[in-house]
This record gives sequence, C-alpha cells and structure tokens, in this order.
Amino acid sequence: MAHIELGVDERMFPGINGPMQFRPETAKPLNELAEVLLRGPSTLSPGERELIAAHVSGLNECEFCHSSHSAFAAAQLDGGMPLVRQACADPAAAEISPKLRALLAIAAAVREDGRKVTGELIAAARAEDATDTEIHDTVLIAAAFCMYNRYVDGLGTMVPDNPQRYADAAQRIVESGYISFTPDSR
Amino acid sequence: MAHIELGVDERMFPGINGPMQFRPETAKPLNELAEVLLRGPSTLSPGERELIAAHVSGLNECEFCHSSHSAFAAAQLDGGMPLVRQACADPAAAEISPKLRALLAIAAAVREDGRKVTGELIAAARAEDATDTEIHDTVLIAAAFCMYNRYVDGLGTMVPDNPQRYADAAQRIVESGYISFTPDSR
Repeated sequence: MAHIELGVDERMFPGINGPMQFRPETAKPLNELAEVLLRGPSTLSPGERELIAAHVSGLNECEFCHSSHSAFAAAQLDGGMPLVRQACADPAAAEISPKLRALLAIAAAVREDGRKVTGELIAAARAEDATDTEIHDTVLIAAAFCMYNRYVDGLGTMVPDNPQRYADAAQRIVESGYISFTPDSR
Repeated sequence: MAHIELGVDERMFPGINGPMQFRPETAKPLNELAEVLLRGPSTLSPGERELIAAHVSGLNECEFCHSSHSAFAAAQLDGGMPLVRQACADPAAAEISPKLRALLAIAAAVREDGRKVTGELIAAARAEDATDTEIHDTVLIAAAFCMYNRYVDGLGTMVPDNPQRYADAAQRIVESGYISFTPDSR
C-alpha cells in the first residue's frame, strides 16, 4: 500500500503509474521529459539510453524502475536481458561499446553526487568520441532517474513481482512511447 | 567553465540556464515541471514550496540551486531571507508552521533515499493536517531537486557569487514564472 490514497487499484497501476494517475498535472512534464531524453532524436539509441536509466535505477536500488527500464532496454538492444544484466552488474566488463561504457561511468558519478563528475571522466568519454550532447543527455538521464527513483520509492508504491508485467510495459513503450502513459488531465 | 561547450556566455547564463540554452528540448519539460510543482494551483503557497526546494538543494550542497531557491522563497515569504536561512539550517526550530516543518522532514528523507520515508513521517505530517496532495507534491519537489541539483553540478556549471543575480532571478520568477526561462526551441 502506498503512503497516500492514490485513488486507483495499485495492482492495475503499479510503481510510478499510481502517482501519475493521482496527479496528471505533474505526470505530463514527467512523461515529456522521459520521452525526449529516452526516445527523442539522438545519436544514442533508445536501448542505450534505457540502459543508462536501468543502471542508475539499479544503483539506487529502486526495484520498480530498475525492472522496468531493464525490460525497456532489453527490448531494444540486440543482446537482450543477458546483456542488460551484465552491463548493470559490471559495466567495465560488459560487451558494450567503449563509448557507452564511459557514459555509464559518468552516470554512476552523477547518481552519487553531481560534483563527482570529474574532468577525467569527461575526457575518457570524449576519447571514445562521445559528443557534448551525448554527455549532456547522459548527465540529465542519470539526474532524472535520481528523481523518478525517489518519487516511486518515496511514496511507497507497489512493485509487481511478475516479470511479464515489465515485458508488457516494454512493448507499450516501444510501440507508443512515454506520452501514452499520461492520463488525460482535462 | 562547464564540462561541455554550452554555446553561450556562462556569465550571462549561469547554473541551469546554460544547459537550458544548450538543449531547449529538455528545458521545456524541466521548466513545466518546476512551474506546476512550485507555482501551480496548490494549498501550499509558492513561498512554502520554494522553501522545500531550497532546503533540499542546501542538503545536496548545490550552491546555485540553494542560492536561487532561497532567494525565490525569501521573495515570497513574510519572514524573508532570515526565515529561509533559519528554516534551512534548523527546520525543527524555525518559525514555520508545524505542517511545513513535517513536510520538510519528509523532503529531507526523500533526498537521502526514497525508502527513508517512513509511515511515522507520513503520520506526523497528517497529524498537522497535511493532505495527500501536499504529501505527494512534497515528495516530488524533493525528488525533482535531486535531479536539478545533479544536472547543475554534474555539468560543472558556473555559480555567480553576486547575491543580486539571485534576487534579480527571483523577481523574474515571481513576475513571469519558470516557463519564461525556456528558450524558443523552434
């Protein structure tokens, strides 16, 4: 049971979906931010960006977001769930591009504290041909998931334990994007 | 100097303003979220909500956001900057309402980790007549500033040391709101 009365059956609207139904006015910019960051035009693929989100959520131990964005990444990366699990557990050893590995290191620093992003981490990403926009977006994805994770856990929302729920959500994200999760606020 | 080339004179666009000029597509939902959370219709005044933002930013030691939102709170609270300084330094002793004091305690827990929000903290806020929407918004304001703080510091943006800069920004926020800071993205 969430800390507040969300006004919906939490089994139907688990995790962030309950608070989004409760407060459509804030759901709108939250979903727009996720859409532009994770699915908007970018030289990073949606799968790569979802992997950054999954990694940060895993480090924050936010079970709902980690399971969700792991499924969203797995649905959009050739390596599927085995690659996502490997990259989240040990990014240094994972079979991902050196650029993505350097961006995951920046994301992990941001998660801890923005001031942990050093010139060395930025230089390492640049050495793997990361662009300024890719570095910007990595910092903001990592920062944004420090918000989404706290929103979901701070309200004590329900976490489904059936993996199929996350796979179903992944299919909807791939087909219709984040905006499709915003309730009609009129 | 920021970690990436923001394409603007950072002295003119300090803190979050540089990255917002660099990436108007993400600036739009970021400002819309701040507008609805801090200035939209609510039973919490804009000054009270800015105080929650200032407190979280202070705990995160994000100098730009702490100075900015302290100025925005001071401009909209009767006690001005002395009250804001007192509330951020020692909320338990500050001359604020018992409800706001209980909400600041929830915000401080969210900042640390969403899972730190206990049933006791929620019950204490309810005992001071906090509503579910006020609790929801407090959790999301605290979570959102864990994002904004990391965005500003993770990109190594410039922090003005002239207090007048923050007072000028406060005047613009009070008069025109957050959306006025979104660059034209067309």
